[in-house]
Amino acid sequence: MTLLKSRVESANTPDTDFPLNNLPFGIFSTEGTAPRAATVLGDRIVDLAVLEADGRIDAGAPVFAAGELNPFMERGPAAWAAVRAQLQALFAEGAPTPVDDALSPLAIARMHLPFRVAEYTDFYASKRHAMNVGTMFRGAENALPPNWLHIPIGYNGRASSVVVSGTDILRPNGQRKGPDEEVPSFGPSRRMDIELEMGAIVGVPTPMGKPITVDEAEELIFGYVLLNDWSSRDIQAWEYAPLGPFQGKAFGTSISPWVVTRAALEPFRVPVPPREKPLLPYLDQTLPGLYDIALEVGLQPEGAAAETIVSRTNYRNLYYSAAQQLAHHAVGGCGMRVGDLLGSGTISGEEKGSFGSLLELSWGGKEPITLDTGETRSFIEDGDRLTLRGAALGEGFRVGFGACTGRILPAVPGPWGDA
Amino acid sequence: MTLLKSRVESANTPDTDFPLNNLPFGIFSTEGTAPRAATVLGDRIVDLAVLEADGRIDAGAPVFAAGELNPFMERGPAAWAAVRAQLQALFAEGAPTPVDDALSPLAIARMHLPFRVAEYTDFYASKRHAMNVGTMFRGAENALPPNWLHIPIGYNGRASSVVVSGTDILRPNGQRKGPDEEVPSFGPSRRMDIELEMGAIVGVPTPMGKPITVDEAEELIFGYVLLNDWSSRDIQAWEYAPLGPFQGKAFGTSISPWVVTRAALEPFRVPVPPREKPLLPYLDQTLPGLYDIALEVGLQPEGAAAETIVSRTNYRNLYYSAAQQLAHHAVGGCGMRVGDLLGSGTISGEEKGSFGSLLELSWGGKEPITLDTGETRSFIEDGDRLTLRGAALGEGFRVGFGACTGRILPAVPGPWGDA
Repeated sequence: MTLLKSRVESANTPDTDFPLNNLPFGIFSTEGTAPRAATVLGDRIVDLAVLEADGRIDAGAPVFAAGELNPFMERGPAAWAAVRAQLQALFAEGAPTPVDDALSPLAIARMHLPFRVAEYTDFYASKRHAMNVGTMFRGAENALPPNWLHIPIGYNGRASSVVVSGTDILRPNGQRKGPDEEVPSFGPSRRMDIELEMGAIVGVPTPMGKPITVDEAEELIFGYVLLNDWSSRDIQAWEYAPLGPFQGKAFGTSISPWVVTRAALEPFRVPVPPREKPLLPYLDQTLPGLYDIALEVGLQPEGAAAETIVSRTNYRNLYYSAAQQLAHHAVGGCGMRVGDLLGSGTISGEEKGSFGSLLELSWGGKEPITLDTGETRSFIEDGDRLTLRGAALGEGFRVGFGACTGRILPAVPGPWGDA
Repeated sequence: MTLLKSRVESANTPDTDFPLNNLPFGIFSTEGTAPRAATVLGDRIVDLAVLEADGRIDAGAPVFAAGELNPFMERGPAAWAAVRAQLQALFAEGAPTPVDDALSPLAIARMHLPFRVAEYTDFYASKRHAMNVGTMFRGAENALPPNWLHIPIGYNGRASSVVVSGTDILRPNGQRKGPDEEVPSFGPSRRMDIELEMGAIVGVPTPMGKPITVDEAEELIFGYVLLNDWSSRDIQAWEYAPLGPFQGKAFGTSISPWVVTRAALEPFRVPVPPREKPLLPYLDQTLPGLYDIALEVGLQPEGAAAETIVSRTNYRNLYYSAAQQLAHHAVGGCGMRVGDLLGSGTISGEEKGSFGSLLELSWGGKEPITLDTGETRSFIEDGDRLTLRGAALGEGFRVGFGACTGRILPAVPGPWGDA
């Protein structure tokens, strides 16, 4: 596939995340205006409420003046496809309809959480990540849980902690107990980490009691975001057995402001890796389930002039697809809702520089990584800014997500006194 | 405390769950009318939208014509107290203001989910339950997890599966693997169970990043419901390590239609049991944290003339209070929302007849229980109706929750063919 040329010149450069091939959706505001829906082309933000007001685009009902994408998603796949086609026609090179009234510099836009998160589920779908963490938490013999090659393992997360890129994250207080400590203590997490993930967004609901096939699940996905599931490894390690992560994951999950649609990613489909054990038939998928999306993580200490890229990996390093995860989620009868967010799980490649968390990159803190500034890191320090980036690479163009960034601020003392 | 006498005669009998002392809140409709808020006195349902329309009650803003209690909860504790006082005055014995236009027989009311569940969290706060399940899942030596006496263990559940009492529940399909099976198979759960719990409802939100003390948490709780966290033990046993329960709990959680307020339960406070290990100070609570609420579970096979009471226990059989759970939930900075539902965890007493699940009552199926009909049960069979009941017992009166009931229907084949 090649670049679709746009009348917006900056969308035709090979280094923009936002050519006409992409057309992601988000929610923005500018000084003194209310949040509303947008797409982006090159360095221009496109106000969809303006285009909708006089019918230049039409989702079948007015949806783009809302401060969240949920009303648009609720219009369903036919409306998503229609609006994408309308936008591609409207912004094609040489297209005649005036659009300047809908364009502003991207730099003046403030981005908001793109959709109301109905519920947030996090999966565990990278085999290398599961092996790495399993080795560190339970030892090499018990690294991969016996169910892992059969089930797309997931757990319910906390939707109220999902925030948009750019939101500062407070280091959490909580219970920590080192292996050599007799009893737990309470205070700021000492092992703050990221998890490099992508999130799939459910755009079509399913009723309770109605399971779906993987191929049906595929059709329910509206699009994808970058997702950083900030994690406190010391809180997590002490709390997680037997009922799973809770406070170790409850203080913040950052997502990119732009939702890249399934349609935009379609040319970049790749298959899941070969099955090491046969899957049960309810997890069968017809289409290649993954996408070739290059991912990277940057770490910039407070005051440093530039960031260091600490990991480079790819979305295709997963064992289960988002559609398989969604079908498994609904298989027992669980109803799915518009705005459900499904985290892929941390995406780790096979080599050390491709791991998706500092826990893995520094091997539990035993092998600190060295930054370009000469400093070292085992885990995140206060003031550090972590940034995820991702893009599918075409011939002379890229379909990108923009940045998903956040800075860790020091823990605040609780109302019970000093932490 | 003694009975508050009401002008509604049936509210003055010692066996009603709904005397003037109680005044729980719910959402009801009658044939051809929209769902709206209600309370209940004896065998009469009280239409709060009617009383609100001409100012006989006043929450400071119109809230009772809504089809969910969330708008009322959002008015806050002062409004909750004001409306309770207004209702107690309006329905006291001999009160003069006409109220007949707001009363209907309870029998003609259809009850709806009382509030929109923002997020659902389930805890694990009964030590006897944790010991019983731990023994069966991990062996006697590893029964109680090392963190259990330090942390009010909880995990995030699925809000979209919470339904009101009376809703039939489909037996889920899923992956099951017995200890002697080589590989998992897919099909209907063979070990269907209940979990007898109570749910606490958050009525005042907290912002992200702002932890709260236990005493502050206490003030955020609007009220309580009975809660049956239907569980599939075979799906759960195979999936739950390492990230916790997921599909084993995702097909249905039933709650009572009536929310009994914290104010109504105030006279029945009792302390938590003695601490076996000191808790960290952030879990300190000033008030006695539990309530003396008698609980029971009835099981009625399809076609049987009557149910058998299979368990009798008490809410005071918990080690952690709802306020401690809520403070722990928010301690790392997790924002809490109006409508958050916190399940207490299965409530098991010390004796066998007081266990809160069939898994425990039949000791993993090894000691089936005998029903009054002569049939036996290890787990739930299709057509069985399970009913939870609960009441705090005063002198000559009771503050009850009504019934939380549901029937298990056979699993449906999935779209991938026969299960």
